[in-house]
Amino acid sequence: MIKSSQIAEIIISALPYIRKFRDKIFVIKYGGAAQTDEVLKLNFARDITLLHMVGIKVIVVHGGGKKINQTLDLLDIKSEFCDGLRVTSKEAIEVTEMVLSGLVNKEITALLNQNGAPAIGISGKDGGLLKAKFLDREKYGFVGEITDVNTKVIYDLLDRDYLPVIAPLAGGENDENISFNINADLCASKIASYLKADKVIFLSDIDGVLDKEGKLISKLDENSISALKKDGTISGGMIPKIDACLECINAGTKAAHIINGKIPHSLLLELFTDTGIGSLIR
Amino acid sequence: MIKSSQIAEIIISALPYIRKFRDKIFVIKYGGAAQTDEVLKLNFARDITLLHMVGIKVIVVHGGGKKINQTLDLLDIKSEFCDGLRVTSKEAIEVTEMVLSGLVNKEITALLNQNGAPAIGISGKDGGLLKAKFLDREKYGFVGEITDVNTKVIYDLLDRDYLPVIAPLAGGENDENISFNINADLCASKIASYLKADKVIFLSDIDGVLDKEGKLISKLDENSISALKKDGTISGGMIPKIDACLECINAGTKAAHIINGKIPHSLLLELFTDTGIGSLIR
Amino acid sequence: MIKSSQIAEIIISALPYIRKFRDKIFVIKYGGAAQTDEVLKLNFARDITLLHMVGIKVIVVHGGGKKINQTLDLLDIKSEFCDGLRVTSKEAIEVTEMVLSGLVNKEITALLNQNGAPAIGISGKDGGLLKAKFLDREKYGFVGEITDVNTKVIYDLLDRDYLPVIAPLAGGENDENISFNINADLCASKIASYLKADKVIFLSDIDGVLDKEGKLISKLDENSISALKKDGTISGGMIPKIDACLECINAGTKAAHIINGKIPHSLLLELFTDTGIGSLIR
Amino acid sequence: MIKSSQIAEIIISALPYIRKFRDKIFVIKYGGAAQTDEVLKLNFARDITLLHMVGIKVIVVHGGGKKINQTLDLLDIKSEFCDGLRVTSKEAIEVTEMVLSGLVNKEITALLNQNGAPAIGISGKDGGLLKAKFLDREKYGFVGEITDVNTKVIYDLLDRDYLPVIAPLAGGENDENISFNINADLCASKIASYLKADKVIFLSDIDGVLDKEGKLISKLDENSISALKKDGTISGGMIPKIDACLECINAGTKAAHIINGKIPHSLLLELFTDTGIGSLIR
Amino acid sequence: MIKSSQIAEIIISALPYIRKFRDKIFVIKYGGAAQTDEVLKLNFARDITLLHMVGIKVIVVHGGGKKINQTLDLLDIKSEFCDGLRVTSKEAIEVTEMVLSGLVNKEITALLNQNGAPAIGISGKDGGLLKAKFLDREKYGFVGEITDVNTKVIYDLLDRDYLPVIAPLAGGENDENISFNINADLCASKIASYLKADKVIFLSDIDGVLDKEGKLISKLDENSISALKKDGTISGGMIPKIDACLECINAGTKAAHIINGKIPHSLLLELFTDTGIGSLIR
Amino acid sequence: MIKSSQIAEIIISALPYIRKFRDKIFVIKYGGAAQTDEVLKLNFARDITLLHMVGIKVIVVHGGGKKINQTLDLLDIKSEFCDGLRVTSKEAIEVTEMVLSGLVNKEITALLNQNGAPAIGISGKDGGLLKAKFLDREKYGFVGEITDVNTKVIYDLLDRDYLPVIAPLAGGENDENISFNINADLCASKIASYLKADKVIFLSDIDGVLDKEGKLISKLDENSISALKKDGTISGGMIPKIDACLECINAGTKAAHIINGKIPHSLLLELFTDTGIGSLIR
Repeated sequence: MIKSSQIAEIIISALPYIRKFRDKIFVIKYGGAAQTDEVLKLNFARDITLLHMVGIKVIVVHGGGKKINQTLDLLDIKSEFCDGLRVTSKEAIEVTEMVLSGLVNKEITALLNQNGAPAIGISGKDGGLLKAKFLDREKYGFVGEITDVNTKVIYDLLDRDYLPVIAPLAGGENDENISFNINADLCASKIASYLKADKVIFLSDIDGVLDKEGKLISKLDENSISALKKDGTISGGMIPKIDACLECINAGTKAAHIINGKIPHSLLLELFTDTGIGSLIR
Repeated sequence: MIKSSQIAEIIISALPYIRKFRDKIFVIKYGGAAQTDEVLKLNFARDITLLHMVGIKVIVVHGGGKKINQTLDLLDIKSEFCDGLRVTSKEAIEVTEMVLSGLVNKEITALLNQNGAPAIGISGKDGGLLKAKFLDREKYGFVGEITDVNTKVIYDLLDRDYLPVIAPLAGGENDENISFNINADLCASKIASYLKADKVIFLSDIDGVLDKEGKLISKLDENSISALKKDGTISGGMIPKIDACLECINAGTKAAHIINGKIPHSLLLELFTDTGIGSLIR
Repeated sequence: MIKSSQIAEIIISALPYIRKFRDKIFVIKYGGAAQTDEVLKLNFARDITLLHMVGIKVIVVHGGGKKINQTLDLLDIKSEFCDGLRVTSKEAIEVTEMVLSGLVNKEITALLNQNGAPAIGISGKDGGLLKAKFLDREKYGFVGEITDVNTKVIYDLLDRDYLPVIAPLAGGENDENISFNINADLCASKIASYLKADKVIFLSDIDGVLDKEGKLISKLDENSISALKKDGTISGGMIPKIDACLECINAGTKAAHIINGKIPHSLLLELFTDTGIGSLIR
Repeated sequence: MIKSSQIAEIIISALPYIRKFRDKIFVIKYGGAAQTDEVLKLNFARDITLLHMVGIKVIVVHGGGKKINQTLDLLDIKSEFCDGLRVTSKEAIEVTEMVLSGLVNKEITALLNQNGAPAIGISGKDGGLLKAKFLDREKYGFVGEITDVNTKVIYDLLDRDYLPVIAPLAGGENDENISFNINADLCASKIASYLKADKVIFLSDIDGVLDKEGKLISKLDENSISALKKDGTISGGMIPKIDACLECINAGTKAAHIINGKIPHSLLLELFTDTGIGSLIR
Repeated sequence: MIKSSQIAEIIISALPYIRKFRDKIFVIKYGGAAQTDEVLKLNFARDITLLHMVGIKVIVVHGGGKKINQTLDLLDIKSEFCDGLRVTSKEAIEVTEMVLSGLVNKEITALLNQNGAPAIGISGKDGGLLKAKFLDREKYGFVGEITDVNTKVIYDLLDRDYLPVIAPLAGGENDENISFNINADLCASKIASYLKADKVIFLSDIDGVLDKEGKLISKLDENSISALKKDGTISGGMIPKIDACLECINAGTKAAHIINGKIPHSLLLELFTDTGIGSLIR
Repeated sequence: MIKSSQIAEIIISALPYIRKFRDKIFVIKYGGAAQTDEVLKLNFARDITLLHMVGIKVIVVHGGGKKINQTLDLLDIKSEFCDGLRVTSKEAIEVTEMVLSGLVNKEITALLNQNGAPAIGISGKDGGLLKAKFLDREKYGFVGEITDVNTKVIYDLLDRDYLPVIAPLAGGENDENISFNINADLCASKIASYLKADKVIFLSDIDGVLDKEGKLISKLDENSISALKKDGTISGGMIPKIDACLECINAGTKAAHIINGKIPHSLLLELFTDTGIGSLIR
């Protein structure tokens, strides 16, 4: 049983972090288990709401993997992956857009509103927020590569104290009538880069970067990453994640975090305690 | 062949209307054929963009009937209508929400952006815009009756020069985890009432109110409507439409229009020419 | 040992309160042991800073009893109390003003700044904030009764995100060259009244209102207070405190709290936990 | 007879131009026949009002030739021209100022107000807008050469949505008590330069720059102008006009137009149709 | 010879008045000798500039009698007076407008700018400032009676720190193409009424209201005026002046002054010294 | 006896200075006799209020020498001076802070408020305004050298039209719990430097810089100062004063004045008359 004096001490222990992060811009990539498990979803919504309430300017970018697959299956549309990207046919992009911006986006937005955060869910096509071109039409179909971010839309929402929740879709570079499916990690990374965000945080299903013994590496930088790649510690699916982090940093984002969304309140633990729980790249 | 002097004269003939409507708030219900025919869709987008460009504060509220039916069919979910309202099961509301806010809303928003209007597509659940309660759960399922409109969300978007496109969905009155399907006509009408809009315009598939000879009645008021109802001129499906108009007017909206969306540029013709093409209720 | 998951749960348990109190105006009377004990002082500064950081508009009004006595003693100026008010001679008011606004006020302000709150220490004479007249010159000397509060000064500071720390002194009603000593409880109460504050909180050396068995009464209202006065439960020094609370409430302040400043982090416990620790008057 | 569908199409054909010109700054020199013919005057007023209504920031600079001559004649004051500039005696400058700012300026301003544009007529002497020095006192008398433009006056009016109508007069460089008569073309050109306007448009009595066959040359740039001057195509009175255009362009104005004010609605035709009707210099 | 210590004392003696009048709105009717004598003109310009500089929001409304007569004479246009108002023919109104807004208005504006006040000279027709109707067309011709004052124009100029100088002309009630000549006293009075000005000050050629012995009456109110009218002390041309004052006061203007513009710096003496020099009506 | 016409002339003679100084930032060091003599104190308060009223942005930095000595004496705390700086023990700094910010600062602030200036008295520790480090702890004790000025605090007060009165105290560089005593001349000089003030004015007990014959030198610059130092004209206590002036100038302050506060209204005479009364360094 925790005593009330301890409760007060724990709450007040968050003060230095709150002070430090006030008015800062955090882009949070939301995906994986945290997006499907009911308890983790609620935890996430409350964590994000708290971040918003203590004055952090939060932008959520979400994926939607499972729901897209389920709906494609229900509608008998086949989909496959290539290099970790969904090969998106004309049929599939319509369903993808519908599920991402109509189902997943609205579910997150609604949950945040219920917990007290004034979230507004938009897609990258609203207000001309995201423009893209084909990454490789032959290979991936309607998968896009972001060529421009209209940050005005985000600033306008933040200025009025809204919390933008963004579905990773983009319109065409020249306002042509087209929708692009964007990888959510890369989407968050690009938005963070254009905003020169203070932090970009990737909520995923892994603990972060692990060393050869499987122990978490808490802090990395360009040099250590380069060494870990050489000796094979960072390999496979971790390489694009880490590269996205490095790209952000080089574009002006101050810090990138990879944390495990399966741990309840992982966001709070990473941000508001001394030890942290994930990998921090600067 | 129209001469250039005539072109100039026609453009300038819109001036008195532009002058009159500047800075006014118009809520436009978008539905019916204008929402499905490719040419009419483009016309609509350009008309709306022009209204926005000449300084009218436009809010679009859309329906989505056909797409919802198609998707429900594809997913083998049955749906029926009762008193003109879709009886919405738990299964159906999820699909309805997904189609309205993920497909239809984004298509309209994208088309407006392509034509130059800075549209932002939101659902009534974003930012706590619309709150509702069950109309009659037993009879209609998840069909909602709006109990509150958070006009701040709309004003914040208008203040920054955005054009809000609203999908007719609402959250629960007490922030409970629920989605309500709202009839688009009533949704537009309620939003116009709370905003005390200058005009609410219903784009539908009919010419307006017709007299016994089938001729359009251009202007109506509470008295003439009451007489026309008595003698059976206004009957059937027109009654709820007209009642929605009257409700708006009584709540402070200055004028309500019913116009035929099948006529190309019907919005411009109604608003920017002397004759108009629909019925105006004051 | 508290687990990190518990830590996160405790921090997040503050969320509903943070949400509720955001942008609200709290006037906090700071006095008694919390103002003299080194550990309690630091706790207080951190609590106040946290309140400020989570978006509460905090105004601190302080007393200064012990320091005034010490300095009067050092300077061999006699002082006595009458009806709980310091009888303030011409000599004493100068020392009182100097100690309150030069020593006590600056110490609190400095401690808040060190903990991250942008505190600005002013006296009630700055910017014409407080005007007063003699309460009873013969009896109490330069003890004043507030006749006007220039709330503009406070709003100007709050608007720019400063945290005002106010020494309980006032100038003359007609801008005459005079300083009045104001009882700090009454000063906080008057300021809260003029601001129509959401809360006024009295940090004192008692637990709140106690019943005949010495148990804390958590909630009171005008009726219960009147009954408790009649049966003698509320008596002696508690009567003016309770009357100040009632006066605030009647002038538009939403709630008044009496809490024990000797309990570490009593402010956080009262505001951010369900049970609370003091008496709440509405 | 033009059908209503054609009317709508013509109005909507202006949309791309409206979109392009929104919030842009246009300085329009108003002179010649368009300023004397009753029908052309009204057309001009309506065109300008439309430009204002669709969000273009319009500044009108006017001449006043005929009225000045008429008044000088009525008052038996002789006036002659030298190098296209009115030689302005002490007597003549007083009449010139009175006619320009009291008669011509007010007539234009009134007509614009009647058509719905919130025009405010000022002279270059109001608010220290224009400062000048003698061009050549011996030769031209009180003809001035602008040495400074106080753009703040113009921006202040534009910011509050007014349409400035400027009489081409200037005060002395050192606030001395003097009035200068400024050539209206040069006045418009200087104002456009200081504002780095998006367009400066000269409404005159000619079609624009003509080639040796008398056909309009629609687009010119520095190179083509230089060639046309060499081969004598641009000569005589066209040279100073073209030079004023080039000077604007070099000072940061994006485009200069010379159009024929005798053509009804020439402004609209030049700005809102593909073909245009005058010469555009970039 | 005045000592420097006396100079400082005199300057500082203005402080209480400056303090009192800061941010107040004064409408000043400028006419009579002060408008024609070169020395008085300069004094007036410097007085007005000083009032502006110490934070008073000054609006100048001017007449123009002599210049109008001179110009009408020069142009051989006859003019006569009836009930103290100029009977204004069609020919005369054009000259009147030209002289008032092009000559007199610009002369005052220029002088103020030379002395450092950012004056902007407009006529009552600019920005739809003044609307009027015929007072009595048969009797007085184009003499108007003000029916509306668009105070937005004045506030917009004051907000940007400009000093409006207004020529007493008005447009038609229904935006028709017409100019009305307005009596300058009545024009100032109406503007003061609509602005609910703090003071309206009439600079004229008399000392104020005199008693039967010819001594100045410093203060008057509705009662004393009524008595003085009855006993014939106030009679003749003073009656309409006094009535204009009373009308202002009844419409919300706080005070009306009649002062003698022939006394150098009469404005400063009336406003910044204890004794004053004119008649004050409350 | 001075005639009223002379009075008006004298008031108006201040106009060119008022015009020149409007919206300018003046930092005024207040000390010496002007701070102790009752008449001079009142004169100072009225002069400062007038400067504020005519639109000058005034910041007052004060010393407090005599009162500190008196209080130290009363409390039997010894204090000595070394190189013109008070050697400040731990005991002494507490008293110094209390007297400066609680007694002297509040007395000045109150007097200004009584005369109509909205003064707010703060110490350099409020809002983190001044940060300092030990100048030489062994030699001078708690005498600080300013290392940073948080100009935001000053601008926030000026923006809301307050007149900041600053007690020369500073907190530690790293927010440590410490108070530093700052020499008031150097404090004013540093604040003026960080603000790039238009003027810094030192009110002292001498007439300014005197030449070898004891005659005032009205204007100095870097070169003349260097020469006067060489030949010994500037020596002793004048050297640090002059050096502070030069430092300001080099840091961007436009002008520094040394004037004799013993002369009544010396501020007005220096600023608002042609001759001036002190030394001006540019």
